Amino acid sequence: MPSPAIVLANDHFRTPNGKTAHGLVRGSDRFDVKAVVDPSCAGHDAGELLDGKHRGIPVVASMEQALHAAGPDVAWCVVGIATHGGRVTPAIRTLILEALGRGLSVVNGLHDTLGEDPLIADAARRAGVALVDLRKPRPKSELHFWQGTIHAVRAPRIAVLGTDCALGKRTTTRMLTQALIAAGIRAEMIYTGQTGWMQGARYGIVFDSIVNDYVSGELEYAIVTCDREAAPEVMIVEGQSSLRNPSGPCGVEMLLSAGCRAVVLQHAPAREFFDGFESLGLRIPSVQSEMDLIALYGSQVIALTLNEERCTDAQMHAHRIRLERELGIPVVRPLHEGLEALVPLVQAFISREGQTP
Amino acid sequence: MPSPAIVLANDHFRTPNGKTAHGLVRGSDRFDVKAVVDPSCAGHDAGELLDGKHRGIPVVASMEQALHAAGPDVAWCVVGIATHGGRVTPAIRTLILEALGRGLSVVNGLHDTLGEDPLIADAARRAGVALVDLRKPRPKSELHFWQGTIHAVRAPRIAVLGTDCALGKRTTTRMLTQALIAAGIRAEMIYTGQTGWMQGARYGIVFDSIVNDYVSGELEYAIVTCDREAAPEVMIVEGQSSLRNPSGPCGVEMLLSAGCRAVVLQHAPAREFFDGFESLGLRIPSVQSEMDLIALYGSQVIALTLNEERCTDAQMHAHRIRLERELGIPVVRPLHEGLEALVPLVQAFISREGQTP
Repeated sequence: MPSPAIVLANDHFRTPNGKTAHGLVRGSDRFDVKAVVDPSCAGHDAGELLDGKHRGIPVVASMEQALHAAGPDVAWCVVGIATHGGRVTPAIRTLILEALGRGLSVVNGLHDTLGEDPLIADAARRAGVALVDLRKPRPKSELHFWQGTIHAVRAPRIAVLGTDCALGKRTTTRMLTQALIAAGIRAEMIYTGQTGWMQGARYGIVFDSIVNDYVSGELEYAIVTCDREAAPEVMIVEGQSSLRNPSGPCGVEMLLSAGCRAVVLQHAPAREFFDGFESLGLRIPSVQSEMDLIALYGSQVIALTLNEERCTDAQMHAHRIRLERELGIPVVRPLHEGLEALVPLVQAFISREGQTP
Repeated sequence: MPSPAIVLANDHFRTPNGKTAHGLVRGSDRFDVKAVVDPSCAGHDAGELLDGKHRGIPVVASMEQALHAAGPDVAWCVVGIATHGGRVTPAIRTLILEALGRGLSVVNGLHDTLGEDPLIADAARRAGVALVDLRKPRPKSELHFWQGTIHAVRAPRIAVLGTDCALGKRTTTRMLTQALIAAGIRAEMIYTGQTGWMQGARYGIVFDSIVNDYVSGELEYAIVTCDREAAPEVMIVEGQSSLRNPSGPCGVEMLLSAGCRAVVLQHAPAREFFDGFESLGLRIPSVQSEMDLIALYGSQVIALTLNEERCTDAQMHAHRIRLERELGIPVVRPLHEGLEALVPLVQAFISREGQTP
């Protein structure tokens, strides 16, 4: 049963930095979002601002208004921004202190650790509520090295990788998992970021907050645990960053350490440069070369999924036709048409791969 | 001026787990190794046990004997093993306490943090000596994100990658740097493991102990700092693990985040499976496919360097001829012939790449 929650997104809801709030507005099994705080766009419906779909979630200007909109049962306040560097902004900090003062527990996915802020820690203690710092690195004594136990996992894995960061890998992962479940397939999402946890995925890790030597092992451990406890037919593993993003290349762990033998590749056809590095002219490699690279890791791209940013419907339609012809694999527009079209492909993958231990 | 030191390698000096001690016996600009403690092979010369070359470093059975051999100036005790999981073994712990009791400072590159062991911390405090935990993760407030400042670095970079872990990447990196310096080229080694620091490299990071989100940025920061302070003509960047080792793939950061446009690839021709995963049958990919993979990251393998393990001289000779013919690049045996042969290749790389900012 999702817990009623208020999401903080000050000045960021209409920017890519609001992606955690966006994910929570799209849907969460852990939190039932009752209001979003962002004075810069207060008065609108959060869903309508996000993708034009009304969701009955008001964007409000203050904690006071949020509490009024949320009703008496609200017990959680979730920091819904992902700032560069993962810092808590002054405006968010003020709202957190207000939330704690009103008896709400706070969930934070930024790198800054709320528990290490004396004023915030003290306010939480006095209110007797929880501070959940999702990105606080765990001590080494709790972490696992990679052992190869992944080879005994029964459920085959599909990774959702992307040609850049911040272009919809998590949303595609979640939508694909839901489409599979709707089709009667026991699928589990393996989250690899804080928002995946906030949305209610049961197994996974916060990839970027783990001491590097333990990343592969923690990923393996999450998958082995999922296999043992939930025994799904297939796991959909959320990717992070991209294989060739110089600011933090990622994805090889999903292919090799998690043994994902198939990949759904998320791509933004109108995006030319790596997010945040436009001025350096760091160009995103072609989809075909990304597919070649993935093949060298022993895995196969079974479908391309498209992000719609900066494109009209007609442009998206043209991109889709062109890419499908060039690449020879199905190309799908998740936010336009859902991901039901990929269900038969995943079913074929399960029957192909599900045989071997 | 290197500081006189005792190295602890209990029961591991004749195994790959002794690789930190091996590196220190081969040579260090930070420590002058006076004795190695390992009762299992006491009475021999450490250099002779390592590679047949007498180095005047006795292997002894106890701290008492080590102190006697080291003389009155010795001030440092270095933990010279790399156990699986990075744990301090009981035998090493006893020796550390003995060393602290005798007034030595202790350097530790294992994951276990000596400063968190109450008995050890207390002994260091009472003796007024230092405990240096090289792999203790640093707080996020001290860490850097990748910013792209690497593109303004003047010195071109060469990465020494390998087809597996524990096969000599660090030794090749150090030997190549030394060969270049001997030829009058201002070269700097960028270390990425604790042993590189112990051997005296001035710039680098302990890669596997950094919270994942900061790995690329810390690597960039080390290189930018080296360029600014030391203004070398070329940097040789030590690799870690291997690009396709499932237990912890690594190397893409060196190629993309550190911008290494050339690679020297270290390879053990007699090694069939990834180190430690022989029973799982995890086969090391071919050198040619590793070169293809590196090319997809925009870099080029300019030479192959060979580890001599489990091969006779005649076998090594045959491997070398065969690989040179198959791959069409120079193949060198560093421990057999040194790395002078690579100097002209690096010179050509510098004149090719050193032009652009």
